[in-house]
Formats: sequence, C-alpha cells, structure tokens
Amino acid sequence: MFEALLDRAAAEPAYRQLYRRISGAVLDGTLTEGERLPSARALASQLGLARGTVEAAYGQLAGEGYIQGRGAAGTFVAPVAIPAAAVPAPAPRAGRPAAPAGRPLPFQMGLPALDAFPRKLWTRLAARQAHALSPLGLVAPDPAGIASLRQAIARYLAVARGIAVPPEHVVVTAGFQGALGLITRLLDVGDQPVWMEEPGYFLARAGLVAAGARVVQVPVDAEGLDVAAGMALAPTARLALVSPSHQSPLGMALSLPRRLQLLDWAASCDGWIVEDDYDSEFRYVGRPLPPLKSLDRAGRVLYVGTFSKTLFPGLRLGYLVAPPPLTQRIAEIAALLGPLPAADAQATLAAFLAEGHFGRHVRRMRQLYARRRAALAVELEKAFGADRVALGAGGMQILLRLDGAVDDLAMVEACRLAGLGPSPLSRAYAGPAKRRGLLLSFTNLAPEQAPAMVQRLARALSVPLRP
Amino acid sequence: MFEALLDRAAAEPAYRQLYRRISGAVLDGTLTEGERLPSARALASQLGLARGTVEAAYGQLAGEGYIQGRGAAGTFVAPVAIPAAAVPAPAPRAGRPAAPAGRPLPFQMGLPALDAFPRKLWTRLAARQAHALSPLGLVAPDPAGIASLRQAIARYLAVARGIAVPPEHVVVTAGFQGALGLITRLLDVGDQPVWMEEPGYFLARAGLVAAGARVVQVPVDAEGLDVAAGMALAPTARLALVSPSHQSPLGMALSLPRRLQLLDWAASCDGWIVEDDYDSEFRYVGRPLPPLKSLDRAGRVLYVGTFSKTLFPGLRLGYLVAPPPLTQRIAEIAALLGPLPAADAQATLAAFLAEGHFGRHVRRMRQLYARRRAALAVELEKAFGADRVALGAGGMQILLRLDGAVDDLAMVEACRLAGLGPSPLSRAYAGPAKRRGLLLSFTNLAPEQAPAMVQRLARALSVPLRP
Repeated sequence: MFEALLDRAAAEPAYRQLYRRISGAVLDGTLTEGERLPSARALASQLGLARGTVEAAYGQLAGEGYIQGRGAAGTFVAPVAIPAAAVPAPAPRAGRPAAPAGRPLPFQMGLPALDAFPRKLWTRLAARQAHALSPLGLVAPDPAGIASLRQAIARYLAVARGIAVPPEHVVVTAGFQGALGLITRLLDVGDQPVWMEEPGYFLARAGLVAAGARVVQVPVDAEGLDVAAGMALAPTARLALVSPSHQSPLGMALSLPRRLQLLDWAASCDGWIVEDDYDSEFRYVGRPLPPLKSLDRAGRVLYVGTFSKTLFPGLRLGYLVAPPPLTQRIAEIAALLGPLPAADAQATLAAFLAEGHFGRHVRRMRQLYARRRAALAVELEKAFGADRVALGAGGMQILLRLDGAVDDLAMVEACRLAGLGPSPLSRAYAGPAKRRGLLLSFTNLAPEQAPAMVQRLARALSVPLRP
Repeated sequence: MFEALLDRAAAEPAYRQLYRRISGAVLDGTLTEGERLPSARALASQLGLARGTVEAAYGQLAGEGYIQGRGAAGTFVAPVAIPAAAVPAPAPRAGRPAAPAGRPLPFQMGLPALDAFPRKLWTRLAARQAHALSPLGLVAPDPAGIASLRQAIARYLAVARGIAVPPEHVVVTAGFQGALGLITRLLDVGDQPVWMEEPGYFLARAGLVAAGARVVQVPVDAEGLDVAAGMALAPTARLALVSPSHQSPLGMALSLPRRLQLLDWAASCDGWIVEDDYDSEFRYVGRPLPPLKSLDRAGRVLYVGTFSKTLFPGLRLGYLVAPPPLTQRIAEIAALLGPLPAADAQATLAAFLAEGHFGRHVRRMRQLYARRRAALAVELEKAFGADRVALGAGGMQILLRLDGAVDDLAMVEACRLAGLGPSPLSRAYAGPAKRRGLLLSFTNLAPEQAPAMVQRLARALSVPLRP
C-alpha cells in the first residue's frame, strides 16, 4: 500500500499527502492496531522522498494519536486510533446516536470508563448468581423488581442522596428509557403539554415525542430551568422533565429558589416532576445540592436514576422512586406492557450493591474521572483558550464552547472523519441553538492520550493551535 | 399442637376434624415439608381415639397428597403440599394473577416444568457469558437485540415454524409484555378499536386496556376467532390480537378459512394482526398448522413468540417478527422508551439456541409434558367423567369443563384454600362467561402425584368421586 501513497502530480505537499493517506488507512481499518509501519528512512527511500518529509508526516500522525513510536522496536499503529465497525454504539447522553463502532471513539458521550470497570468481580458475582439460580428463580420476578435489589437501592439512596424511602417505593426499571416508558404510560401524556429543558437531553425529548406528548421547550439559564417561563408557556403542563443536579447538557445545578418554585408549581396544578438524576454520583467541585425528591412534601416528584453511567449501559438497569400511591400502578403497567428486567441481572446488581462494591467503585471512578477531566481540560485550554472550556462542577464531559456562527454539526462530521466522537451541543436544542459547541467525554481518555487527541481535534476543526 | 386437634363438643366427626386441622396446618406452614407426624397409634392414644379414626384421617390426607407414609420410617408431610409465601408468583397465562407463593401450587398456570429445566447447563453458559464480558459488552446493545440472538431466533423460526425471515426482521423483546408494549406504541392504539378474542388471554386484554385501546370482544367458536363477527362489530379496527396455533385459553387452532379471511380483512383496511404464538412448541396430537405469519403476503402480521413457556418466565425474553418497514421504527421506540433486555441474558440465550440445547430441551419437554398430561387426564376422567375433560391438541394445561350455573371463581377460591392453584375459565371473558371451568396446568405435576392432587381437587370442589 505504501507504493500508492503519493500522487506526484498533486499540488498538495508530499508530507500532507502522507499524513492524510496514513491517517485515513488507520481510520478505515486498512492499517490496524499494533501494525508496524516502515521506518521513516525505509519509506523515504522507497518513495524517493527526503527522510525529513516522512518524519514530518510521522510526527504529525504521532502527535494526533494515530501512530506510536516505540524506540528501536519501530513505529506502530496506536491502539486508541481504531474506530472499527463491529458492534453498535450506545445512544449517547447528548448529541445524536453514534454510528456503529467497535469501540468507543475518543470523546464519545454516554459511557463510563470501560477500562476501569471491575469486570472480574462482576463476573464472579454474575456466575455466583447463575449457580444460585433456584427453581424459584425461574419463576417470573416481581414486576417492580426483586426484593433484594429494591432494598439495596433504597439503602443507597438514603446514604448517598438523602432520599429516605422504604424499598416498596422503589421500582427497578430497564434504565432511564424503561423509566420514561413507564412514566409516560402512567401519566398518559398523549396530547398533553410536557415541559422539557431547552437545551435538554435529546433522547428524553425524543421519548416524550414518541409517547405522543406535546413537548413545550422551557429555556434554561444560569440557574437551570426557567420555571416562570414554563408557567407562561404552559401553566397546566402534565409533567416537567428536569435534570436538577447537573443540567443535561449544560451542567449547572437548578438553584434552590427555582426548586421551590417548581415544586410549588407542581403542587398548585397537580403537575408532576420527573427528576432525572443521571450522573449526580460524579461531582468534583463543591457540595451537591440534595435532590429535588428530598424536598418533595406534596409527593409530585418521580425520581429516576440509572446504573448506565456508574456501571455500564449494557446492564440496562435503573430505578424510579415514586410517591406511594403510584408505585403499585407502575408495577401493574410494567407487568402488562413491560419492561420487566431479567431476574438474574437484578440479582447480580443487588449483590454488587449490598456487598459494598458499588460505593467503592463510584468513589474510585470519581477520582479517576477527576484526573482524566483535569488532563483533558489542560490540553483544551492550551489548544482553544480557557474561555472556551466549560468544565462545570461534575458530570462526564467537558463543553468546548464554539459560540457564534459556527456549525457544530459540520464540526462533528469532520471529527468523525478523524476518528473522534464528540457530540454537538446544538443537537440538544429543539429550536434554534442559542449556544454551540462540542461535548467531549473524558471518561475513556487516559491523561497520556489527552495531548494527542486534542491535537487531532484541533486539526479536525481547523482551528489554529495557540503557540 | 396435636393436643388441640380435637374439639370434643363439635358435631363434626373426629376423623374429619383431624383431617381438616392437619391439612390446614400443612397449608398454613405450621407443619412443614419433611416433618414427621406421630404414628397413628401414638396419636390415637394421645387423643383418646380409636386407632382406626386416626388412620381414616391419615388415609384421606395421604390420598390428597398432604402427607406420605414411608413404611417403617413413619409418616411425613409431603413435599408438594407446601404453598409457602416467599416470592411472588408469575402472572399466569389465563385466570387472574396468582397470590404470592414460594413455589408453584399444583395446577398453577403459566409455568414450564421447573424441575426439568437444565439449570446446570444454563448456569454454565451464563457463567461463560459473564466471563466473556468484554469492554464492548459493557456498551449498550442494539435496541433491537444482540446480533447473535436475532440470528439464532431467525434460524429457529425457519426450522421450527417455517417462518423465513432475515435476522434484521427479528426484534428481541422483554417477553410477551415487552412485545405488546412496543406494538401498542408503534401502532398508537390509544382510543382505537382493537379486536380481542372472547374468551382470550386476560393479560393481553389488560395490556391493551392499559395502553388506552378500545377493546372489542370478538367471539371464539370451534374454528377460533369469528372473523365475520369482528368485521360486524368493528370493521376498521386498528389491530386484531389472536392466538391462532392454540387459542388461549380454549386451545383450538384457527381454521385455514378463518386465517385467510383474517389476512384479507387486515389487507383490505390497513389493519394489523398480532399473532401470539405463545406455546406452539407443545403439541401432542396431529400436525400443527403453519403460523399465520407464513401466509402473510401483505405484510400485516406482527408475530410474537416468548421463551417464558419453553425456558423460564424469569428470563423475560421473547421476540417480535415484524414486516420490514416496521422493524426499524420498533427498535427506535425500544431505544427511546424501553424495554431493552440486558445484553448478558441475551448472550446466554443466544448460546443456548446456537449450540442446539434449545431444540433438545423443547423435544424433551414435549415428551415429559405428554406423559404428565396423560397421567392427569386419566385421573380427571376417573374423578369427573371424560365429557368434562378437554385436552386439546397441545398446550400446557387441561380444561376441566364445569358448564352450567357453577361459579368457577368460587371454586378457585376453594382450591386455593386446599393449596391448589387452578385458574378459572370465566376470568378469560371480558363479558358474561359463556363457558365455565378450571384450567389445570400439568407441567409441574409428576404422574405419581396426579391421583392425590385430583383427589384433593375433587374434595375441594365437593364433587363426589365417581365409583
């Protein structure tokens, strides 16, 4: 293949042609992880170029994480460079659903650190549950979830989130989507006005639309959801879907006055509030506000949590804490129309929680993410300037602000061609995007990879690097 | 406790008092499985009764399966006698949802043979899947199901049911309920007329009601669903939910003319047909008709299958085969509003299918069920007369016909007090029940238990035994 690398008639400089062809070959899988490249000297002689020309291309490629020099051993295709196309990627937390990919692309949203998940431990617990499968375990589990898991979740919520509810108020769901499916049935949102944050979690919005709701876009400002604006737009909405701990995708917390205003609104018009507490476990600065649910005197808050961010999305497990009169009805809906999570996955998770592994894992991830976040932030600030880098106090991604007339959708396309998977901020808006930017997940980016990936990002965006 | 067994002032004969108290103690858990009873002689002397009186009570109790004589070792509480109350029972296929129970009651519907499931093999496969859990496995699976499982299901359907579809047309669901949840969203059944068999699977009807459909009861006769009646009642229904292979609960097959009539109806008014093929694997007499789906030229049939009957309900896995244009939309709904079955359970099942275990298991169960069915039928015919015993050609239960003015709901209550779990046929009707009877599952009833359980049933129903 190295024969055909150069088009000698082209105006493009030889080193750029080399860079473009080799990075393209890595991205389309022609060159695969761990493959050895010819030495700069050998390739230069083969192509009749000056050795410095090949070294310039190799330097650029290494700087952007496509290839790795390993001293005397030679130069190899780098591991993180591979997008591949074997299994479908998950729907990310913001931005559009990712294209099929064999492993997450650098910056891809919605995934915890896959390299840091305690797989062996999980496997041991899963195997133990499988071995313990009794004839009774074969019988269909309670549609609200198995007792041990509901108990473990109730205990976790009391300790970690200050939500004191008996296990009977906890319903195990098939993740956030499962909870939303149950809620939209329970509250019969068809043709009803529903408040949604603008910008907001686009999959939640799409879910509400799929359920037939009339989605009302309520703007978000520095204090989070603008409750007064919501009341002006749709005073008697059936439901408000909010992310108070860490607004999705902008990251601010809903202020205390707004929380009280929202709760008052719901109580005054028999509206309901869905509190999407999707990643409150990850906070790196300051103390978190308690969840809205803990202030819910009138019983209007349906609290939704997920294990997709803390453990792994393939687990498909989350939970819903509902005011007592609703829990039984939710279980009935689950029994009739699904979803009913499999009993053995529930049992494995219950053991993981009850034996203290979950608490330890979350603490470990918080430290790991703090390091990965800091490393990425430093590189982004170097490359794009500190004023463009919005860290927020928590979460699993950094927002690279690109306000102005930029087209962040086109930028995401360019990144995808460079093997990078950021999400466009504008996709979180139902209406015209007031802010633009790229959401960059740091969960799967080791600190030592950050410089190369940010360089590749900067090149893809064609933003000149700062000196 | 044996001191207080007798009320000497009561008019009831002593042997009946003994029978009633001891069977009650077994059923309420005061006496537990394997517990040793005093010998008839010892108890008689303790209570100041003739030994023959105690022996009469013991004989009755043994005949109804509450206790077991083990020769010189003594007399013990029998294993199958125990209802207990530890875990919730599944929603049965017909009749109302069962009360919480630690193990299935004799005759309880909706369960495969729990003693015959290859647990060790399943466990080994599950553990292997758990060990093989890669970082990629942690990522969210395709909302339509993991590729290997869709492929295995497509292959199974081709071989076992003559349905030739590519894997892309198969969507993995969270059992029948999960499929119904997706279908009701997909077809937006809210306030729309939907045909339902009368009598029919009451949980399907309840699911349609929960989804907001206007359920139209279409009568069932000897040929299955009366399509002409449906067209008279609601000519432009959105959907018809039918069980053509083995009508739930009456057991007849939908005749070929009716099948063609139903398909024509759907094609003529853009209606849809949900084919609930819930237990077609189990047929003991004659050859099955091919599924409706295999005749579906116009692409109006949504075919639904489940592994709850063939493997175990706690697995919560089933599938849906949809006409090509709908599959993608179904996957989108699943991605947005659930349910998304856990990836590892899917992987275990895929291996179970691909390695041929499923085919072998179904063949084994078919033989086992044929034996259990025959043994129960013989005893029922002895006790109630052959004209009351409706076997059908397949399925997992026998219908004991009790036509006339009997109250089968009250009979089920009486059975429950005797530790038996049949379901009332009248519960399968939305309107007035045209037929009454008891649905008796044979899947968990060993042939040697059949005589005792039928005796107990006959006593509970207070129907005099035939000579």
